[in-house]
Amino acid sequence: MKIQGKHYHTIWVDEKDSAIVKVIDQRKLPFVFETFSLRSADDAFFAIKEMVVRGAPLIGVTAAYGMYLALLHLKQENREQELNEVAGYLKTSRPTAVNLAFAVDEMLAFILAQKEEAGLKEKVQAKAAALKQLEIEYGDSIGEYGVKLIEAIYKAKGSTVNILTHCNAGWLACIDWGTATAPIYKAHLKGIPVHVWVDETRPRNQGARLTAYELGEQGVSHTVIPDNAGGHFMQHGMVDMVIVGSDRTTVTGDVANKIGTYLKALAAHDNKVPFYVALPSSTFDWEMHDGVKEIPIEQRAADEVAEIEGWHNNEIKSVQLIPESSAVANYGFDVTPARLVSGLISERGICKANKESILELYPEKNR
Amino acid sequence: MKIQGKHYHTIWVDEKDSAIVKVIDQRKLPFVFETFSLRSADDAFFAIKEMVVRGAPLIGVTAAYGMYLALLHLKQENREQELNEVAGYLKTSRPTAVNLAFAVDEMLAFILAQKEEAGLKEKVQAKAAALKQLEIEYGDSIGEYGVKLIEAIYKAKGSTVNILTHCNAGWLACIDWGTATAPIYKAHLKGIPVHVWVDETRPRNQGARLTAYELGEQGVSHTVIPDNAGGHFMQHGMVDMVIVGSDRTTVTGDVANKIGTYLKALAAHDNKVPFYVALPSSTFDWEMHDGVKEIPIEQRAADEVAEIEGWHNNEIKSVQLIPESSAVANYGFDVTPARLVSGLISERGICKANKESILELYPEKNR
Repeated sequence: MKIQGKHYHTIWVDEKDSAIVKVIDQRKLPFVFETFSLRSADDAFFAIKEMVVRGAPLIGVTAAYGMYLALLHLKQENREQELNEVAGYLKTSRPTAVNLAFAVDEMLAFILAQKEEAGLKEKVQAKAAALKQLEIEYGDSIGEYGVKLIEAIYKAKGSTVNILTHCNAGWLACIDWGTATAPIYKAHLKGIPVHVWVDETRPRNQGARLTAYELGEQGVSHTVIPDNAGGHFMQHGMVDMVIVGSDRTTVTGDVANKIGTYLKALAAHDNKVPFYVALPSSTFDWEMHDGVKEIPIEQRAADEVAEIEGWHNNEIKSVQLIPESSAVANYGFDVTPARLVSGLISERGICKANKESILELYPEKNR
Repeated sequence: MKIQGKHYHTIWVDEKDSAIVKVIDQRKLPFVFETFSLRSADDAFFAIKEMVVRGAPLIGVTAAYGMYLALLHLKQENREQELNEVAGYLKTSRPTAVNLAFAVDEMLAFILAQKEEAGLKEKVQAKAAALKQLEIEYGDSIGEYGVKLIEAIYKAKGSTVNILTHCNAGWLACIDWGTATAPIYKAHLKGIPVHVWVDETRPRNQGARLTAYELGEQGVSHTVIPDNAGGHFMQHGMVDMVIVGSDRTTVTGDVANKIGTYLKALAAHDNKVPFYVALPSSTFDWEMHDGVKEIPIEQRAADEVAEIEGWHNNEIKSVQLIPESSAVANYGFDVTPARLVSGLISERGICKANKESILELYPEKNR
């Protein structure tokens, strides 16, 4: 997608030096646009851990390139052991991302399977690029399916389609297109008038900082709102549909997503507003049947609630929000039960949030 | 209630100089505790407008003392006209507070009805004190009724009662006790173990700043949480009841309160958590029957969402949270339909959120 009119991915190999992988430094957005250079697996670990990059698909691809960078700097003796160690190390950079382990294992197996030294680096770079390309195609495909829903609302309504989203399931979390944002970008490109209500998404404000930024850079009309406001807008007919992402989806259609998603799903249900979840199939957990009971919810640092980052005198500053002596709780995600979900938009199409409909799209998982 | 172990009201006449009315400066809480002196009606106007004081009951009492201060400084010719002008001026200090106009009119009528100059200032001061005392008694009474609900849960459960609240319907919004907090303070004083989940309450963070502060100063166990988190806590049995305040309540039991209240009511309903609204009867609108359709919702400044105040290097600083080019919407309140409200706790007792039950408590309003 575009930043300041120029097309970007969130991660790319430097054009002049293939030993450098570049990423957009997301810690400074939307206030400062900077890139960050990765020259080693250590740098990739740092970028993931310190949230220079975030979002499950982008984390996976960053780790894949981390394996590529590791290969460039291998000491010659005992390569297999060294690669295994790097893989294990990269997997510990974030606790819960499924894509991370998948991408690292895929790269490790690929590298170890290569028999010839000639062209090895190019092949491994191409393998990482293929994983990256797959994520782009997922977003593209989710966008193509999802845009039909927006188009149908536009045809029925005849005026701007108002879409509410929570957190950042945008291209900055992926490589291009995003998940929840993909149908919105496709609609915008098709000339369908859309307007997005962007939940600020406390405590880390990914909506206010990242979703607002990326929508603005594509020229998509949007309004940042407090997380508290969505119910009011839905009561007053100001939301035509909700599209959110998913961090983990049970085979029965329960959706774990950023904390607060469940509250918006309740409001959508109470006001008969369609509530869609856009997700690549990698977020499905084919073993889980009860999201509220089974999906473990990460507790995060108290600082994320007690303090907040913003822009002040041309610097990013962190200010304290609560009394010194007050306790804080910070759960990263909540679970929206399938009964509140109108449908899932995956790279294979749109299905209902129930086991039968999900397995119809993914028959190979029907065991 | 207590601050640093000492008993305070939010407003009082200075002990040494009865021409000075003091208030707690709520703009600086919880970071700095300071009082602010009112010496004229102009000062009272400023204090209300600039939110040195806030909360409908406290605004009303501050305006009442503003009339008292006006009287102290009257020019002798054409007193009636001057008093009328001051009254009109004070009423414009905040747009929506019902208590404000009521308190000003009450004081104006009282002053104009006095025939003797002797002891006039003392009488008018006593009148303002009586309005203040009434607010204290309302809170006390709401607390006595409400604590029975908490006690019943404690008896059934046998362990700490977890109460979620939104915004600040605490003693800092009133004179003493508060509304939503009154039952909590009474329970704490009775030795019933309570713990409060304090919604941060974006955009102005009255929960994180004021409710957390006042609970902490009374020694009530509490945890600040993002507004997004309450649904998750309710899904997992971590909330035994919700108590919130009300800015306006229809005779049918619909409740306008701080934006986001409706989302918590939906989550409480979905998880069978009792949802109570504590309110003095002055918030009832006896003419309105459909809150979502009829209650006008104030739109507030974009800055409240785009920026946030916090503590940094021993100063209150404001930082920017969103991209420069993003739009913002900021509705102050939302309406929780009566069907989601378990009961209303007023100074006359507890009733259901429907017309029949409300009018049983207030038979004089049954026309």
